[in-house]
Amino acid sequence: MEQFAIANTDGHPVPHRVVIVGGGFGGLYAAKALGRSKQIEITLIDKRNFHLFQPLLYQVATGKLSPGDISSPLRSILSHYRNVKVLMDEAIDVVPEQHQVILNTGVLPYDTLVVATGVSHDYFGQNQWAEIAPGLKTVEDAIRIRRRIFRAFEVAEKETDPEKRRAWLTFVVVGAGPTGVELAGALGELAHYALKHDFRNIDTRETQILLLEGLDRVLPPYPPELSTAAAKSLENLGVTVHTQSFVTGITEDTVTVRHEEQTETIQTKTVLWAAGVRASGMGKVLAERTDATLDRVGRVIVNPDLSVPGQPDIFVVGDLAHYKHQGDQPLPGVAPVAMQEGAYIAKLIRYRLQGRELPSFHYSDVGSLAVIGQNAAVVNLGWLKLSGFLAWLIWVFAHIYYLIEFDNKLVVMIQWAWNYFSRKGGSRLITQEENPLNHSELGGKLG
Amino acid sequence: MEQFAIANTDGHPVPHRVVIVGGGFGGLYAAKALGRSKQIEITLIDKRNFHLFQPLLYQVATGKLSPGDISSPLRSILSHYRNVKVLMDEAIDVVPEQHQVILNTGVLPYDTLVVATGVSHDYFGQNQWAEIAPGLKTVEDAIRIRRRIFRAFEVAEKETDPEKRRAWLTFVVVGAGPTGVELAGALGELAHYALKHDFRNIDTRETQILLLEGLDRVLPPYPPELSTAAAKSLENLGVTVHTQSFVTGITEDTVTVRHEEQTETIQTKTVLWAAGVRASGMGKVLAERTDATLDRVGRVIVNPDLSVPGQPDIFVVGDLAHYKHQGDQPLPGVAPVAMQEGAYIAKLIRYRLQGRELPSFHYSDVGSLAVIGQNAAVVNLGWLKLSGFLAWLIWVFAHIYYLIEFDNKLVVMIQWAWNYFSRKGGSRLITQEENPLNHSELGGKLG
Repeated sequence: MEQFAIANTDGHPVPHRVVIVGGGFGGLYAAKALGRSKQIEITLIDKRNFHLFQPLLYQVATGKLSPGDISSPLRSILSHYRNVKVLMDEAIDVVPEQHQVILNTGVLPYDTLVVATGVSHDYFGQNQWAEIAPGLKTVEDAIRIRRRIFRAFEVAEKETDPEKRRAWLTFVVVGAGPTGVELAGALGELAHYALKHDFRNIDTRETQILLLEGLDRVLPPYPPELSTAAAKSLENLGVTVHTQSFVTGITEDTVTVRHEEQTETIQTKTVLWAAGVRASGMGKVLAERTDATLDRVGRVIVNPDLSVPGQPDIFVVGDLAHYKHQGDQPLPGVAPVAMQEGAYIAKLIRYRLQGRELPSFHYSDVGSLAVIGQNAAVVNLGWLKLSGFLAWLIWVFAHIYYLIEFDNKLVVMIQWAWNYFSRKGGSRLITQEENPLNHSELGGKLG
Repeated sequence: MEQFAIANTDGHPVPHRVVIVGGGFGGLYAAKALGRSKQIEITLIDKRNFHLFQPLLYQVATGKLSPGDISSPLRSILSHYRNVKVLMDEAIDVVPEQHQVILNTGVLPYDTLVVATGVSHDYFGQNQWAEIAPGLKTVEDAIRIRRRIFRAFEVAEKETDPEKRRAWLTFVVVGAGPTGVELAGALGELAHYALKHDFRNIDTRETQILLLEGLDRVLPPYPPELSTAAAKSLENLGVTVHTQSFVTGITEDTVTVRHEEQTETIQTKTVLWAAGVRASGMGKVLAERTDATLDRVGRVIVNPDLSVPGQPDIFVVGDLAHYKHQGDQPLPGVAPVAMQEGAYIAKLIRYRLQGRELPSFHYSDVGSLAVIGQNAAVVNLGWLKLSGFLAWLIWVFAHIYYLIEFDNKLVVMIQWAWNYFSRKGGSRLITQEENPLNHSELGGKLG
């Protein structure tokens, strides 16, 4: 493996160049873990200038937190590692034979490449739904959803036709995985607590929140008893759960749902998408340039050391990696998996430079968490299954722990504490539209 | 004045209907002050669903605070006043003869009308500059400026041509009133403190910040000794002040400035506009529908009781009002003036309902404040002129005091405390663009 040579012809050490594409949990953990290695030079590429704490994005979408509360500038997180360079750019291709990444504005040579570009939404081939039913992956998505939620209440307040008003006060969330459950729960809280004194013509407690799931229960990856507890908490917040329900159509005014042999059309102005994911474009690039094969949603099926088949110097971590852990089931696309994979790759690179071998990646399950509303969450730590207030406390502290690691976001904790007692939530801004009174979402533009 | 009758033919009291257009400081203070009067029914109209604490908007533009930190939902501020209704709508016309306000989506009758729609930017007839040199009045403006500032550093980091790099690292602020001075000071702090460890190819301390002012000193409305202190503080932060300088041209790459008989062209990619204001459209509406006359920038010249000439039931408060206080100089467009005017109008309406008269409006000067950077501000309380750290402390507490009044924004205080010690500022997001790597501002669109 000559690319791991660490001395040039003058006998001076030449740093080993690691290029990491993507500043999410996987890429960032790899960069941080390599940041103290003197023989290594790291370049982290990201389209955005910040790391986003995606597990809390639904709190931005529902007006509890501001985007700045859950984002940290990548440069600021990594500024103390002098061997880490951050480049705001986009990787569009890879030339494995020449050890090069092609960026939007240049070419970057690498000795080791780590691809961590994640996934985005998938609409199961119905891409026209994307405009009507936004998903929740980026800050812009969250602001868009926030705008739609709060504008729906504003329009309902002015609407005199009871049927139309009802459509504005009907919210449909498609998909009852963690994101869907958390969104629906937060909507329930808004309607029943935060907003209940704020309107004069409508009673926000009459808001209808529907959570649609194709499988037979909410939170399908969790143990059944936690799904039951989650469903109960959702019900307490006024959320109606429909399982074994498949969306067959979405328009600006309706959602059509098939349940067993019946088809129902729901009048609604707000549909939120939390159903499917699709791997980012780098998966396809790797499939074209290497022997990598992709799974059904476009993720790269990786070797036991997370490398790409036939490419010992290219690794995939995080949501973009399809890693068969036990049986055929890939590891889920959650932050702890990405973090552990990023840390593993960093260790592997350091070991290789020392001529040592590292055993295959092994994910140690830290459990899973989902929050259904204030005081209610479900926690599955394997040896411990919890729901309710105690689970919520665990959820709060687990998230604060990670947020603080990135940016000392003490402020978030205080904001939460404040929100907890006031049940208000101060970030309910309807923003980023040329004309905030334009009720059509399409063509919303910056002024 | 029969419109102030408070009993209908059945002998039941009929509430007096006050319509307030605009939820800035003037409108909000009027609404709050009327909120406890049982005989009065208030409708507050605003295009936006939130009140914006505009004096801190420059901190959003420079990545210190998030928009949510300085905004509060109007509904939430007013939710406890059961006689106050909030409508998210836009007033487009007034029919004084019929006591009606025409909204975008309907018609609203009033007994008393309070217009508080404020001002926006003015480019002295050069409207093509608006696209290139954004002003700072809305949350969207602030996010746009934030995006441009932080992207300029990102592009500079990648730029290899020294001249182009220099242009990306040159920031020009036009206008040295409080907003211009605060923006320039915050830019200086960014370059010299917050960002200095974050880049590898550029030294942010080489950033050039130019502050251009047509008059002979910065902060022209302040006493000369404070202008001198402010100029000194700006210099310490690396800001170059050019007085008696007039902008004659702005392009995407340059600013042309005339100073005495000389003309200079500065290569820059970032021009921020803090020079002129223009009254909002309601001024023009009132001039057309009533006997009101407008001043040079379109503000409504009001009577000593803030009413519109010939219209005892229509009042103008805040930045849109031209109120001659002493001599011919109108009151400045600052928050304390608007607040006092709003409170005055509320009192006047209550007095009228009781058949009492209120003397003319009198502004009691609370002084003026401008912050130049951390630890440096200038304060003019009339009897007390201060600059430096003590002035900064006064500035901090004055702002927190008002923020807390609106929404218990304790969090802002803690965020500031944190920023103060860390000198970091965590809201440096480049957001709200379809393609964040697209270096042209034009056509930035939401995804």
